[in-house]
Amino acid sequence: MGRTDLEYPKQPYGTVKRYSPRASYALRTIHHIVNTAPILHVSFTTPDSPFPAILPMIGHMGSFARPSADEGDVLDLYLHGYVSSRMMNSSRAAPASDSNPPGLPVSVAATHVDGLVLALTPNSHSMNYRSAVLFGHATVVEETDEKLYAMQLITDGVISGRWPNTRLPPNGAEMSSTSVLKVTISTGSAKIRTGPPSDEKHDKENQEVVDRVWTGVVPVYQTYGDLIPGPYNKVDEVPKYLSSAVKDLNEIGQEQAVEAAGTTPAK
Amino acid sequence: MGRTDLEYPKQPYGTVKRYSPRASYALRTIHHIVNTAPILHVSFTTPDSPFPAILPMIGHMGSFARPSADEGDVLDLYLHGYVSSRMMNSSRAAPASDSNPPGLPVSVAATHVDGLVLALTPNSHSMNYRSAVLFGHATVVEETDEKLYAMQLITDGVISGRWPNTRLPPNGAEMSSTSVLKVTISTGSAKIRTGPPSDEKHDKENQEVVDRVWTGVVPVYQTYGDLIPGPYNKVDEVPKYLSSAVKDLNEIGQEQAVEAAGTTPAK
Repeated sequence: MGRTDLEYPKQPYGTVKRYSPRASYALRTIHHIVNTAPILHVSFTTPDSPFPAILPMIGHMGSFARPSADEGDVLDLYLHGYVSSRMMNSSRAAPASDSNPPGLPVSVAATHVDGLVLALTPNSHSMNYRSAVLFGHATVVEETDEKLYAMQLITDGVISGRWPNTRLPPNGAEMSSTSVLKVTISTGSAKIRTGPPSDEKHDKENQEVVDRVWTGVVPVYQTYGDLIPGPYNKVDEVPKYLSSAVKDLNEIGQEQAVEAAGTTPAK
Repeated sequence: MGRTDLEYPKQPYGTVKRYSPRASYALRTIHHIVNTAPILHVSFTTPDSPFPAILPMIGHMGSFARPSADEGDVLDLYLHGYVSSRMMNSSRAAPASDSNPPGLPVSVAATHVDGLVLALTPNSHSMNYRSAVLFGHATVVEETDEKLYAMQLITDGVISGRWPNTRLPPNGAEMSSTSVLKVTISTGSAKIRTGPPSDEKHDKENQEVVDRVWTGVVPVYQTYGDLIPGPYNKVDEVPKYLSSAVKDLNEIGQEQAVEAAGTTPAK
């Protein structure tokens, strides 16, 4: 089994139970969904409430020990965003056990909507989407080099090439005010739906319905619009790395949505 | 206090602790963020795993008892998507107590990314976003009329006017194979960031940096692309309700993102 084929183990909490042909456990697939999501939702249990906490954060996967690792390799997830004191304390306090690494157990979801799938009946309506969930243990990154690695990874994950084109390096106050979490992954899964609508035979043979109801896909993708300079911007021409990054994001997003619409449905 | 001003109570688990000027507890604000999100992330604690479950679902807020209620009113959240047997059983089993309504405690997050905020330093980078979390108790909708109400609410919430333009009504098999959850809301909160970048004074006065680093906002919005007819579509002209719905979604999304970029930052 080559490295491109690595898969996450199937755990009861991380197994896709419905429409399982749509499921994937491939690291490459899951990591790519996470790395291209503009926002992640991070959830963890809290001892003082019946409701799990759920927070939007930004993040990117990488390997500090082996920075040349690619998306199909075993990677850690680095998260940036507001880390509450509660979360911070839990991440520091949770001890390792025989079966668990140290850190706060977190579930992280990334979902891309690629299209609205409009069928003959309300019940056959669907969405084209790519969704991934990772389960792992979050610890606070304390070491300066690893923190810098993660900060660059996350910044360049949003806009490729942005990090070297800012004021560097972060000063002491910036380093200490920035919290980065590292999630050591236990397992994960992805679920992907592509293709046109798929109705029941008796509906597709109902001439009155087929003649009246438009069926197909509305492709959906994130657009990165015309750059709006801020009040103290002095760089009149948008730098090449930035216009290229925006152009790439737009092209990839649109292509993916249109391609998803035409693929044979997995269902 | 008029109905437009209703606010959710501040609970320890639902209070925004950082950048609190960005927080809102107004029902109207929170419900609108939820209703316009193409996907919601639903999280709940599971007894057999340290990791909370987190699932993408679609949903919309409404009031079956008073269908004319608007977004600023007290509403329930109806969710559609894969409801696992585990979730279904928990929703049915969880008994009411003195302090809690019946149902499975769930946390539901909706996040819109409105822009990438590019500042002079990596640390001042941010996103424009609108994010909401609702906390409540989920029960399975068993009654046919309420289920139909919710199915229409959710379908038309994705594409306005779609429900009456499909094959109706759902038949018995469709009704019984469709699961709808109703979340009775305990509380919720929203967090919103708008505006251009905001750097520290010493960076804005650093001529070398200001002359070199482009600062501003990349507006981000969901685009609904050209409709792609499915393999058995017979309706050559895209119906008016559908083209209007797509046009509205695109205009509103883009306007919101561009407007957010220009507003004075809340920070």
